[in-house]
Amino acid sequence: MNLADVQAKYQAFKELGLKLDMSRGKPAPEQLDLSLPLLGALDGFKTADGTDTRNYGGTVAEARALFASLLEVPAGQVVVDGSASLSLMHDVLIYSVVYGQPGHAPWAGQNPAFICPVPGYDRHFAICEALGIRMINVPMLETGPDMDEVERLVASDASIKGMWNVPKYSNPGGVVYSDETVRRLAAMKTAAPDFILMWDDAYRFHHLTAENIVNANVIDACAAAGNANRAWVFASTSKVTFAGAGLAAVASSADNIAWWTKKSGIRSIGPDKVNQLRHVRFLQDRAGLEALMVKHRDILTPKFDAVLERFEAILGGIEGVSWTYPKGGYFIDLVTPNGFAKQTVELAKAAGITLTPAGAAFPYGKDPKDAHIRIAPSFPSLKEITQAAEGIALALRLAIGR
Amino acid sequence: MNLADVQAKYQAFKELGLKLDMSRGKPAPEQLDLSLPLLGALDGFKTADGTDTRNYGGTVAEARALFASLLEVPAGQVVVDGSASLSLMHDVLIYSVVYGQPGHAPWAGQNPAFICPVPGYDRHFAICEALGIRMINVPMLETGPDMDEVERLVASDASIKGMWNVPKYSNPGGVVYSDETVRRLAAMKTAAPDFILMWDDAYRFHHLTAENIVNANVIDACAAAGNANRAWVFASTSKVTFAGAGLAAVASSADNIAWWTKKSGIRSIGPDKVNQLRHVRFLQDRAGLEALMVKHRDILTPKFDAVLERFEAILGGIEGVSWTYPKGGYFIDLVTPNGFAKQTVELAKAAGITLTPAGAAFPYGKDPKDAHIRIAPSFPSLKEITQAAEGIALALRLAIGR
Repeated sequence: MNLADVQAKYQAFKELGLKLDMSRGKPAPEQLDLSLPLLGALDGFKTADGTDTRNYGGTVAEARALFASLLEVPAGQVVVDGSASLSLMHDVLIYSVVYGQPGHAPWAGQNPAFICPVPGYDRHFAICEALGIRMINVPMLETGPDMDEVERLVASDASIKGMWNVPKYSNPGGVVYSDETVRRLAAMKTAAPDFILMWDDAYRFHHLTAENIVNANVIDACAAAGNANRAWVFASTSKVTFAGAGLAAVASSADNIAWWTKKSGIRSIGPDKVNQLRHVRFLQDRAGLEALMVKHRDILTPKFDAVLERFEAILGGIEGVSWTYPKGGYFIDLVTPNGFAKQTVELAKAAGITLTPAGAAFPYGKDPKDAHIRIAPSFPSLKEITQAAEGIALALRLAIGR
Repeated sequence: MNLADVQAKYQAFKELGLKLDMSRGKPAPEQLDLSLPLLGALDGFKTADGTDTRNYGGTVAEARALFASLLEVPAGQVVVDGSASLSLMHDVLIYSVVYGQPGHAPWAGQNPAFICPVPGYDRHFAICEALGIRMINVPMLETGPDMDEVERLVASDASIKGMWNVPKYSNPGGVVYSDETVRRLAAMKTAAPDFILMWDDAYRFHHLTAENIVNANVIDACAAAGNANRAWVFASTSKVTFAGAGLAAVASSADNIAWWTKKSGIRSIGPDKVNQLRHVRFLQDRAGLEALMVKHRDILTPKFDAVLERFEAILGGIEGVSWTYPKGGYFIDLVTPNGFAKQTVELAKAAGITLTPAGAAFPYGKDPKDAHIRIAPSFPSLKEITQAAEGIALALRLAIGR
């Protein structure tokens, strides 16, 4: 297809008057339908140990056991709380600013900084920005963040208090941390004694292939390296059952979980146990969750394949253009030649396709190369996503004029 | 009954080997049964405007409208979020410490203090203690806090950044703020330009009589006095539907709500909208909620009456002993002669009755007069609460030796 063809096709696409929103990684309605039984009647309100989930007090031991099994930690090292893991991450950080990590001084007044592998998740970066935690970009490689660079930074600068991680099917690059990366993160020497790994295991069970990739257990790796309190692990069922109305959990060392329990106990008498019981009854156990995720995969994989097929057809062989082939998660990272991401997003917008703003995957919303576009194929229908991928590909070729 | 009778009766009571927990104001199972339909199937998942409550994004306009009607504020001045109003209070305060109230400097570093009407709610005081906010006791009168003292304190000390309030059926004294108290709180001159009223309207609809007392609208009063951003109002359905599994809301000025929305938007993509829709379908509207509260009242009033009857029979006419006759809420405040609350709680404990620790209703857990015991009649059965009230009354007489 030459440039004249591209221009004609883009113009024709624009005239279709489509209105597609691909700005966020939202599950599709048919994925949410998989968990419709959650809207059904809950048969009873008591846990196995007799806790009345409708009242104050007690915990849903079954929910804790479920997440212990999912995250492969002892039940005493995980807390199920709320419906958004983002909130748990936020709270770990705001408590660190105000109170300090267990046994350490508050971060406030220490000019704290975080390492941010890029591209990454905009909502992580928004928390740091709000709390005045400076962000230091480190490039993502195929095995995870550039560990030579990470080790160099943390070894000498005690103001670097932590690091964001999406260890599997990262947002947006789809990167899987290698076992060696996990080992090095767990063992590396840090100038800050209170350095933490924020480990957002958002896509732990969200495979797009039958490979079902498993990361090394970061909590075990940290304990083995003598840094037991380093890792804070987060997960939720937002993209398993209902987005924003599922269960969230945090796991860490026993010391850290004791600290968390105390601090979060000031904030709340306890989480919504009725929803915990509802989820336990529906998901049952890890095998139940994994079976559900296969159904999600069956819905998602054709959408990802459709985008990749359109990109190959329209962008294949164009110099400086590439994209990821994720084995899980919710995103494809489309890489443009330097300086063309924003323009591509604008041209797509003009053709009726709303994308995540270019730069959103970087701290402060600034992609230094203006080269990354996050593609979220999950929400639109297969037909819509195929159209959208074509429109985005045409917009990119028009932007670069080739 | 002479002291020998008291001793014999106490001994007999002890030998019953009862085990009653009255430490917290928990709804009774039969109250929770009133909302059992919430466990039933939700017929659909879309709001009237088509928002899919199972997915990210959007709001449940019906839930917002419900709370606007309940709290008598415009819908734009209320946000429904989470299932615990305590968490919303905590977050307003931790955001004030870290970010400052809208347009003002962070409280951190300003040695902030709060006025605490006493006796009051231990969980309010726990938040202040955790955040390093100094607490200044002000006595509660029959019309609310001692306003002469409050006005004197806030007029001259700019480090006093706010004040706790339970304006109706206060915990534990059952005090109702008079309209004059509300007006003075709204209008008083404060040395701190960022002074706020934390207005925990926990018992707004929780009447024990048919009087259905109404407070003056504090948001309107603040606006009328030129202090529109002064009041933060909180409420929840924890003691309407399910405790800790209901809906919570915060209301304030439009400016404050815009600030809240921005700050809480960093923490979460949004609340559990499925539970919001479930509640709206069940409660329907303000009239539906009020009808439900009459059913709660029918369960609770006999329990309060039983306690009051036992106290009158055993403690009536004993010098220095008094108790409140609340017209709503969840507590009776039993006042002992100075120096006998702790001992009474210990003797009750020895007889199998767990009470809230003496002093819990005061900042730092210290009742300067050691004279207040919080009685929570809601959770035990009518038979149990009658026994418990007798046991507590006997313990008190034994403690004072009269």
